[in-house]
Amino acid sequence: MATVKEEELPLVLVHRPPNFHFPFKHLLQTHFRLLDPLDSDPPESTHSFFSRHAASVRVLLCVDPTPITRDLLSLLPFLQLIVGSSTGVDHIDLQECRRRIIAVTNAGKAFSPDVADLAVGLLIDVLRRVSAGFQYVRAGLWAQNGEFLLGFKLGGKRVGIVGLGSIGAEIAKRLEPFGCAISYNSRRKKPSVPFPWFKNVYDLAVNNDVLLVCCTLTEESRHIISKDVMTALGKEGVIINVGRGALIDEKELVQLLVRGELRGAGLDVFENEPDVPQELFP
Amino acid sequence: MATVKEEELPLVLVHRPPNFHFPFKHLLQTHFRLLDPLDSDPPESTHSFFSRHAASVRVLLCVDPTPITRDLLSLLPFLQLIVGSSTGVDHIDLQECRRRIIAVTNAGKAFSPDVADLAVGLLIDVLRRVSAGFQYVRAGLWAQNGEFLLGFKLGGKRVGIVGLGSIGAEIAKRLEPFGCAISYNSRRKKPSVPFPWFKNVYDLAVNNDVLLVCCTLTEESRHIISKDVMTALGKEGVIINVGRGALIDEKELVQLLVRGELRGAGLDVFENEPDVPQELFP
Repeated sequence: MATVKEEELPLVLVHRPPNFHFPFKHLLQTHFRLLDPLDSDPPESTHSFFSRHAASVRVLLCVDPTPITRDLLSLLPFLQLIVGSSTGVDHIDLQECRRRIIAVTNAGKAFSPDVADLAVGLLIDVLRRVSAGFQYVRAGLWAQNGEFLLGFKLGGKRVGIVGLGSIGAEIAKRLEPFGCAISYNSRRKKPSVPFPWFKNVYDLAVNNDVLLVCCTLTEESRHIISKDVMTALGKEGVIINVGRGALIDEKELVQLLVRGELRGAGLDVFENEPDVPQELFP
Repeated sequence: MATVKEEELPLVLVHRPPNFHFPFKHLLQTHFRLLDPLDSDPPESTHSFFSRHAASVRVLLCVDPTPITRDLLSLLPFLQLIVGSSTGVDHIDLQECRRRIIAVTNAGKAFSPDVADLAVGLLIDVLRRVSAGFQYVRAGLWAQNGEFLLGFKLGGKRVGIVGLGSIGAEIAKRLEPFGCAISYNSRRKKPSVPFPWFKNVYDLAVNNDVLLVCCTLTEESRHIISKDVMTALGKEGVIINVGRGALIDEKELVQLLVRGELRGAGLDVFENEPDVPQELFP
């Protein structure tokens, strides 16, 4: 194999959240010359770093859903491609990309099975109180106060999936053997899907014990899980969110949980990450 | 409906762990007169309470796997039936019951789906670090240190089930849609089961990434998950126990976890409940 000098490797600008050390970096480094502002020494702002490399950058790698705004794009006049390592595109100003003819890719369905696994894990955690039980034992309360509260069965629970895309379908497949009754909401009824369809999220909530949120975040779906929807789910209802935080009106969710008007929530995402409402940790 | 005086209801003596307020008590009270030493006022020891009611007691209700020893049975000379509310019978001196011709019942398969649900929940928890992630967020480390460690996929994991009874079969059914490869160990190969069978737990461990322990606890199966078996599973191995604590050599398990010679364990049970080894909470 001919050795390629590092300077001859194609240039890729990296855009990632602070402290997220992406594990596939070493795989990329053998094929690309990575320019990463977070590696710069002395430390340099994204703005200054991007501006300094503006003339040579054609490709931007976006690790995790790190925001790519119109302002940020304006620093890179010759950009042709944004490669997203995550699912979703709500963190990228797509309108600006379309205007400038910048191609955008994302991870597509690659993570769907893993997200579905986590969704099921969160549902079991909330119903069967796994992490709550862990805290109880860890705090020494088992010996002190006796057995922990019993949880709730998965069998027979009516689970409404909000958005039956690739993640939602993977979740349904996993939950059926638990004896859960699946139904879903999506813009259109899917002819090939055997589960009952509800034309809006409110009706889905009225007819289910659990709402499992995994639809795409768009301007239309922001706060799709509103106070009304959560109230319709009822005080024994459970909400699991593996989509994006802003799909739920988080302030209202927290209030309902604090007042005992929902049984529980399993949240992989929050509205203002990494800030998490402290009321969730009583 | 004719009213029956409480004194005319059949008498049932209750044996339960302190602080375990069994939720089906009110259902029983309409049909039986319950004698419960833990309800006695002033407080009275089990020994004294049982002795005092010895002449009239024919039926003992055992809530949770509360130990029923030969000594305890000797206090109840006219006992004819022990009704167990839990699965398993390892907490009851069966030999003595056989000698005295006392019938023993238990919950049979009634809880198998629920135990299987929890087993899957614990496996997802360990691999995808659900409760560890919860602790991380709760401690405010997300904002401070950035993203939490990534976990491990369920898809493709080789899961060896120790004891393919009703619980084991329910677990296998649930894990298949996650893309796990199932195999099992049981005394005999089960002709109707499609999964590979290993004739001992050591071979099962060598050929799997996860050991899922759900066999019955007997003198033969005590510490069936020995240091050798756990070492054979290897440092990327995971152990889930939803059977009884004494199926695992807990001291060795703790040592292997502390030394990083196992990836993790999801434990619903411990050897000396409610005492839990503190090394598990670093």
